[in-house]
Amino acid sequence: MEERNVSDVGEFGLIARAAARFGIPPAGEVWSGDDCAVLRFDGRDLLFTTDVLVEGVDFERSWARGADVGWKAVAINASDIAAMGGMPRRAVTTLVVPRSTPLAFVDALADGLAEGARAHGVGVVGGDVSRGSEITVGLAMIGLPTVAPVLRSGAKSGDLICVTGTLGAAAAGLLVLQGLDAPRAARERLSARQLRPIARVEEGRAIALGGATAMIDISDGLIADLGHILAASGVGCSVDPGSIPIDPDVLEVMGSDASELALHGGEDFELLFTIPEDEFRAVTQVVAEFGTMVTRIGEITEEGKLWGGEEWMEIEVAGWDHLRNR
Amino acid sequence: MEERNVSDVGEFGLIARAAARFGIPPAGEVWSGDDCAVLRFDGRDLLFTTDVLVEGVDFERSWARGADVGWKAVAINASDIAAMGGMPRRAVTTLVVPRSTPLAFVDALADGLAEGARAHGVGVVGGDVSRGSEITVGLAMIGLPTVAPVLRSGAKSGDLICVTGTLGAAAAGLLVLQGLDAPRAARERLSARQLRPIARVEEGRAIALGGATAMIDISDGLIADLGHILAASGVGCSVDPGSIPIDPDVLEVMGSDASELALHGGEDFELLFTIPEDEFRAVTQVVAEFGTMVTRIGEITEEGKLWGGEEWMEIEVAGWDHLRNR
Repeated sequence: MEERNVSDVGEFGLIARAAARFGIPPAGEVWSGDDCAVLRFDGRDLLFTTDVLVEGVDFERSWARGADVGWKAVAINASDIAAMGGMPRRAVTTLVVPRSTPLAFVDALADGLAEGARAHGVGVVGGDVSRGSEITVGLAMIGLPTVAPVLRSGAKSGDLICVTGTLGAAAAGLLVLQGLDAPRAARERLSARQLRPIARVEEGRAIALGGATAMIDISDGLIADLGHILAASGVGCSVDPGSIPIDPDVLEVMGSDASELALHGGEDFELLFTIPEDEFRAVTQVVAEFGTMVTRIGEITEEGKLWGGEEWMEIEVAGWDHLRNR
Repeated sequence: MEERNVSDVGEFGLIARAAARFGIPPAGEVWSGDDCAVLRFDGRDLLFTTDVLVEGVDFERSWARGADVGWKAVAINASDIAAMGGMPRRAVTTLVVPRSTPLAFVDALADGLAEGARAHGVGVVGGDVSRGSEITVGLAMIGLPTVAPVLRSGAKSGDLICVTGTLGAAAAGLLVLQGLDAPRAARERLSARQLRPIARVEEGRAIALGGATAMIDISDGLIADLGHILAASGVGCSVDPGSIPIDPDVLEVMGSDASELALHGGEDFELLFTIPEDEFRAVTQVVAEFGTMVTRIGEITEEGKLWGGEEWMEIEVAGWDHLRNR
């Protein structure tokens, strides 16, 4: 029998195999399977999450400066905490670098970590350094919940499906950084969405306080992350394709490919959430105060997946996987 | 001017440069520079630490099984929490693997994480997976203090310098795993000290409760880690060379080189602490109840570094550095 390797099960398969070995959380805690873990010490909840960025996979030094990598390491973890309705608070970081790495790159990376930390209300409190073939930046973050953490599993039939901001810009920004031609203003805005994502912390808090039943940040892509909510909640959906808030710069630069990026591109770090229809208007108004729009893209159903009224299969298979050969 | 790279400043230089960018902790918190960060939420202290293991640097697949790597990732973080007198509680992990990594290795790694977590009272609550050139396992851990966390900075002139257990075994274990000939029983015990370190959690708690003024775990080597206490506390020391508890297996296998490994080998994950002489006997008795001996190796002085009564320079330069070319 041929020996299997990790690419045969993929990133999500690997996580599931590991999580199954780590046992069952005590009452009141949520472990693997949501944006963050929810911990409980002395009756108080704490949010805990981690993410890693690897050179050659998550960024290239040809298009990302050290400061961009440091900023993003903070922002993507803060986004996981935002997706629970929580407030990012403290982080530790691990840095693996080749010995030949320019000191200037690592100094800039630390500057970016510090800048991203200040922007997201986080203190970077410690870390560890080792050596490896490529630059790897790991970050683990602790956050505090405002209300009860909003899980992926609470969506109910009849809830509206909503998303903050616009979609596809981070993926288009990656293409632009890799050389895709675009008008200067669009190029700058799209690159910034890839290099300097901003976690929707205030928005996430307002959405949690406003009665969201489920929430996730869009890191894998709208369709994949909607799939995570549906699977965790055991519900279906009906989505209106015409309502997807495709980023205007993406429409300008990508034309007919814009929709593909908005649905599957990932890394927009917008918030996808479900909420009872009665609460929708109030939440939209509060989130607008932070300069962020909320778009209603569909609704949660008992079962099935409808896309403009048609049965929709694609949702099962999409999404970024770091380990599969694609 | 030639561009400097990270090996010019080394691991500790890099950490210091980064920490300087991360700002000043609020009152009651301790950030970079101790075994763990000490955080304060709602008036309660929390310990937070991280460590990373890299294939080819911290382990080789030729001598470490997946389960060993997983175990060690937990144990070395738990040891940092033990060195504050705290109790390890929850961890998140990042795993970077080449696509060609055998699934069996990663399954075993997850088994080792789970086993190490159970042994140290920790829940592994989540993680992230990406891809890279070699296997990299990062782990971040939250712990709870029992009494006020024991820092590196509290050593006072007249305090005794004490160490738990025996020294040099992990470094000798590495040599054995790399092929050094040794009698079977010694080989097995020494390999286990390298592959399966056990954090001194109960001992650390007892030492903290017993009045230790400073504490550190021996990860870089006795001399280097004693240097960290002296620097943080702004004190000197007088050490009795004949009192160093060299591991008997190391003496058997390494002969006249045993002392070098006991002083500089590192990774023993024993606890090095300072304590007023009046408290020494009581702490020794309590720690003995866990089957662990405590050895008095010297005392803290106002200044200077004496080794068997002679001025001692070596303490300044020793210790493992992941980035320097050595």
